[in-house]
Amino acid sequence: MDFTEESATAAVVASFDATPDPRLREILTSLTTHLHAFVKETKPSRQEWEHAIEFLTEVGHTCDDTRQEFVLLSDVLGVSMLVETINGTEVGGTEATVLGPFHMTESPSRALGETIDEIGTGTPCTVSGTVTGLDGVPLRDAEVDVWQCNEDGFYDVQQPDTQPAGNGRGVFRTDENGRFHFRTVVPSHYPIPTDGPVGRLLNATNRHPYRPAHIHFIAQAEGYEPVTTHVFVADSPYIDSDAVFAVKKSLITEFVADGDRRHAEFDIVLAKVDQ
Amino acid sequence: MDFTEESATAAVVASFDATPDPRLREILTSLTTHLHAFVKETKPSRQEWEHAIEFLTEVGHTCDDTRQEFVLLSDVLGVSMLVETINGTEVGGTEATVLGPFHMTESPSRALGETIDEIGTGTPCTVSGTVTGLDGVPLRDAEVDVWQCNEDGFYDVQQPDTQPAGNGRGVFRTDENGRFHFRTVVPSHYPIPTDGPVGRLLNATNRHPYRPAHIHFIAQAEGYEPVTTHVFVADSPYIDSDAVFAVKKSLITEFVADGDRRHAEFDIVLAKVDQ
Repeated sequence: MDFTEESATAAVVASFDATPDPRLREILTSLTTHLHAFVKETKPSRQEWEHAIEFLTEVGHTCDDTRQEFVLLSDVLGVSMLVETINGTEVGGTEATVLGPFHMTESPSRALGETIDEIGTGTPCTVSGTVTGLDGVPLRDAEVDVWQCNEDGFYDVQQPDTQPAGNGRGVFRTDENGRFHFRTVVPSHYPIPTDGPVGRLLNATNRHPYRPAHIHFIAQAEGYEPVTTHVFVADSPYIDSDAVFAVKKSLITEFVADGDRRHAEFDIVLAKVDQ
Repeated sequence: MDFTEESATAAVVASFDATPDPRLREILTSLTTHLHAFVKETKPSRQEWEHAIEFLTEVGHTCDDTRQEFVLLSDVLGVSMLVETINGTEVGGTEATVLGPFHMTESPSRALGETIDEIGTGTPCTVSGTVTGLDGVPLRDAEVDVWQCNEDGFYDVQQPDTQPAGNGRGVFRTDENGRFHFRTVVPSHYPIPTDGPVGRLLNATNRHPYRPAHIHFIAQAEGYEPVTTHVFVADSPYIDSDAVFAVKKSLITEFVADGDRRHAEFDIVLAKVDQ
């Protein structure tokens, strides 16, 4: 019963046999199996394995209160979006996409029609829509939490010196017809942070770090499953090559020009909580 | 071309198509494929995925100049040993095993017959052997670097206050007959560090953290492939359940009692460097 390339996986899986939590045991069994398959397939040299250990260590050391490099790594490998997709909404409901790392502060409550832009230098834009159930019935008093970057591609938390806290953010409540509407500026595409090991990985693979322009939404109403999603600006650069794979066709929306303003209409459909 | 559970892996693999280094592309393609297969098989909830991110982040934050928690994680998942096995020595040569995290200081040069134990409280022990090529020819002036924990299971670097630096370590050179011999104390089994996230993982899976007693060796001679290995004490607790899966039958050696001393004979066979 020597540890060999053939016996290795069974030996490690067996070591988890006494795990009390069956879900943890299931996850570790699957992890061991797939991780060993990866190692057997790529046959890393000792030096390559050391490089992998160093890379993961640097990813860990890059994480702090305002930076989550492991989420970025999960993002650029399509894993975050895969988890979103697996946990996706019921057919007919608004599709979910990644939360992203910038929902770190509470959005200020704002009245319908108010602006979330406190700067005034970008292209003015109005966004409106209706929140309904799968049956099309409008949901009044639904909460619609939105956040976005400014016209230069930065969120308020990234520019604490030049953007007031809460700029580009707002929590709205739908009216008696399930409608929400607010003013803002057209968001810009932007790069995910590239000054860490994940940025180096993108660079080494000739991948760009950009995300197409989008506004984040979390919509929720009592008795319904909340949805975390984006509305994507249809004519944004990188709409076909989001660095984090988060674009769904159903979320791409025309920001229609109307004089010197633009307007986007984005309806949100929620599924009822399973009884 | 929406990102779906079915299309996800191909989309991410395709994003690495322009990677200039073919080996990096091969590794990332394989990593993406196996990582996605793991996620699709286990279908983690968003909360489980967040826990995974938090766990990896904590593993990273536990790493510092004297602690490598990602190596420990790789160890307890059998991955370190799998990499060793894949990079193993030629048939007939001494089998390799993991380097471990305690070869962090240079071992002092010592004369044949000298002791590596500078304390004198453990069970005295002599270790000797011959370094040969695959053809059995003794290799003179081969370097034999050894390091071990003391009778309480601690390496010198773990007890800087009570063990002199270099205790339990020595670099020897074989004589004209390829022989090495030194004095020491019988090493103890010991736990890998359990005060970090990997220790919590072992605890949550009802796995013990112990390694059976062993002496580390790196043997090298000019023109031959070096080998990194252990000699395991045959009657040690945990000889059948090493927490890091590093035991090979060929490396288990009787530490034979001889009055109040013990003696171990461990020959080392090196393969020639490929011409």
